[in-house]
Amino acid sequence: MEVYLDNAATTKPADEVVDAMVKSLKVMYGNPSSLHRKGVEVEKEIKKVRKLLAKALGCNEKEVIFTSGGTEANNLAIRGLVKANSRKGNHLITSKIEHKSVLSLFQQLEEEGYKVTYLDVDAKGFISLEKLEESVTKDTILVSVMQVNNEVGSIQPIKEIVKIIKGKNSDTRIHIDGVQSFGKLKYSVKDLEVDSLSISAHKFHGPKGIGALYIKNNVRMMPLMVGGGQESELRAGTENVPGIFGLGEAVRLSFEEQEKKIDKIRKLKKYLIDTLKENLEDIHISTEESEQYAPHIVNVSLKGVRSEIMLHSLESDGIYISSGSACSSKKRGYSHVLEAMGMKENHIDSAIRISLSYINTVEEIDYAVGSIKKHLNSLRKIIRR
Amino acid sequence: MEVYLDNAATTKPADEVVDAMVKSLKVMYGNPSSLHRKGVEVEKEIKKVRKLLAKALGCNEKEVIFTSGGTEANNLAIRGLVKANSRKGNHLITSKIEHKSVLSLFQQLEEEGYKVTYLDVDAKGFISLEKLEESVTKDTILVSVMQVNNEVGSIQPIKEIVKIIKGKNSDTRIHIDGVQSFGKLKYSVKDLEVDSLSISAHKFHGPKGIGALYIKNNVRMMPLMVGGGQESELRAGTENVPGIFGLGEAVRLSFEEQEKKIDKIRKLKKYLIDTLKENLEDIHISTEESEQYAPHIVNVSLKGVRSEIMLHSLESDGIYISSGSACSSKKRGYSHVLEAMGMKENHIDSAIRISLSYINTVEEIDYAVGSIKKHLNSLRKIIRR
Repeated sequence: MEVYLDNAATTKPADEVVDAMVKSLKVMYGNPSSLHRKGVEVEKEIKKVRKLLAKALGCNEKEVIFTSGGTEANNLAIRGLVKANSRKGNHLITSKIEHKSVLSLFQQLEEEGYKVTYLDVDAKGFISLEKLEESVTKDTILVSVMQVNNEVGSIQPIKEIVKIIKGKNSDTRIHIDGVQSFGKLKYSVKDLEVDSLSISAHKFHGPKGIGALYIKNNVRMMPLMVGGGQESELRAGTENVPGIFGLGEAVRLSFEEQEKKIDKIRKLKKYLIDTLKENLEDIHISTEESEQYAPHIVNVSLKGVRSEIMLHSLESDGIYISSGSACSSKKRGYSHVLEAMGMKENHIDSAIRISLSYINTVEEIDYAVGSIKKHLNSLRKIIRR
Repeated sequence: MEVYLDNAATTKPADEVVDAMVKSLKVMYGNPSSLHRKGVEVEKEIKKVRKLLAKALGCNEKEVIFTSGGTEANNLAIRGLVKANSRKGNHLITSKIEHKSVLSLFQQLEEEGYKVTYLDVDAKGFISLEKLEESVTKDTILVSVMQVNNEVGSIQPIKEIVKIIKGKNSDTRIHIDGVQSFGKLKYSVKDLEVDSLSISAHKFHGPKGIGALYIKNNVRMMPLMVGGGQESELRAGTENVPGIFGLGEAVRLSFEEQEKKIDKIRKLKKYLIDTLKENLEDIHISTEESEQYAPHIVNVSLKGVRSEIMLHSLESDGIYISSGSACSSKKRGYSHVLEAMGMKENHIDSAIRISLSYINTVEEIDYAVGSIKKHLNSLRKIIRR
């Protein structure tokens, strides 16, 4: 039995996604910049995907830029907004639990001379709105916050965050890392009133190598790459057509009966947490079932067993989960997220992340928890000896 | 009948390429950064592709970085090398016939305060080696030259260029835009002694959205994007796994019986030029049959008929060619390449590019030239009336 429960790291592309990509490779292989029919037909399809994605995000199609993924979207937005607003100030704000693609960039910007405030989070994984309000000054040109944390699933209250920032400095730009939230939460970027928001297709059953950035109309941003003028001059390069076609299908599927799908994931999460609690002793679940947490992420510390050991034990049963996030899991050691939440060392060391999709089942969860229980018991015995 | 003769704009992905991509989507969908088997198996495959590409380029696998395409590879290399060497000088050199992804970037760097020398080309599309030698100074930190021009196919003599540059300033970095040359010319980057070279998969029957950069070991370069530390910290972001798998197959196919394939393209080119000359009057072929030109590109001016009109006329017969390059064809007007070559206005206005692949046939060329002849005659009659 193969049970894939690492859906926050990446998801299995849906069959419809694969079919759309194959179509782009076998039939619609023209260069969208070509003037002839083989180019124009591709350009039209790209436009359809852009429209579909704009609808899903709640914005205008002119506000959508395709990128090579979430990392590029975050880099483009943050660096692009900072560089376009450098004359207005020198201060940036982010949180301590951001994804590496955000944190590394802020560290780089710090080296370039910008002042950065890294907001603390509480034990539940939320920034303090009071601290945020204190931090915003006349010099603050950008605040970047993730909507859903990739390790514990805490949802920052974006609307309140925006209100606070705009109340202190209406010129401050606001970027949202939406990579873990797209398709999992219902929102509209217009309603959130943010300046930019990034998404990544492979987190919602689309392909790797494609993402997108919402960038509000008339908000100035510098491109990362220049060239053929694609994506309204903001992202040059021949379009990743198979990726865009795949992204389109993934968006369509995510928003088809979206509430049912979210509801299913949330129920699976509740079932998982309940089953973990019922079956296992000495565990610490960092992820609540409340609406303050994303429906797909459960972070649980299995006291006494290092997460990597558990990861490989489960793997031997065909179960795939994560220790920390995929992007930083290769750099051994600490989860900067759990550390920022003030968790004890033994909880951090033994934390595993189980992340769900609507394609998972109750049977899979039963099988996974059974396997965790089995390994936990035998591993704890070995350690106690 | 459908005759695709726009292979310098983009190519049809090979069936093997599509199959490899489908495999990555349906089976090997793990995140290569994941510690479990579903991640590790993908990481191993990526390593295989990296090795294969390194072999094709004539370098070490550690010197290969995957990017989202040629534009990113050019932007990464040029900006990355300039930023890493800013302390050594302020002067950059390129040519007037580079691709937009190079020229736009140099214009941007000029705005940022760098001094740029744009080398002229002669009527045949070659830079002057004397002018190059004169231009290199102690302040020159980077020279960027394309190996094969995308509109006329002229091949710059890279080894001589490198020798001249290094003779004047051994610290000067040398980037080669190899997007149109990879698979079409035989070379090794070690032999060329360049610091970096960019390629793009969709130019040789791979997918769009993936490319690569050769970057010489120990040459310092700043990344464009930061994050999860992928690609030796030089290009962050979850890998475009379907793209990389597709690129791998495209590389394999390009280098399988490479000489036969190049030879076939070169023969097709000769046949095309001969047939054009035999059948059409008042034409100007900017592309010679000599070894100084790439095997796949023919640029021909059909006096009296604007290139766009011819492009759409041929399209009605199912024949796809280009007016100028795909990347700049949407911005009406002049080809900056033909202009730099000092061509007459009426030759520039009526220039079409026919670009070949080893999958094209003599029959296709006969059909295309027949169609050009038919349309040329009737269009010239209309114009003369």
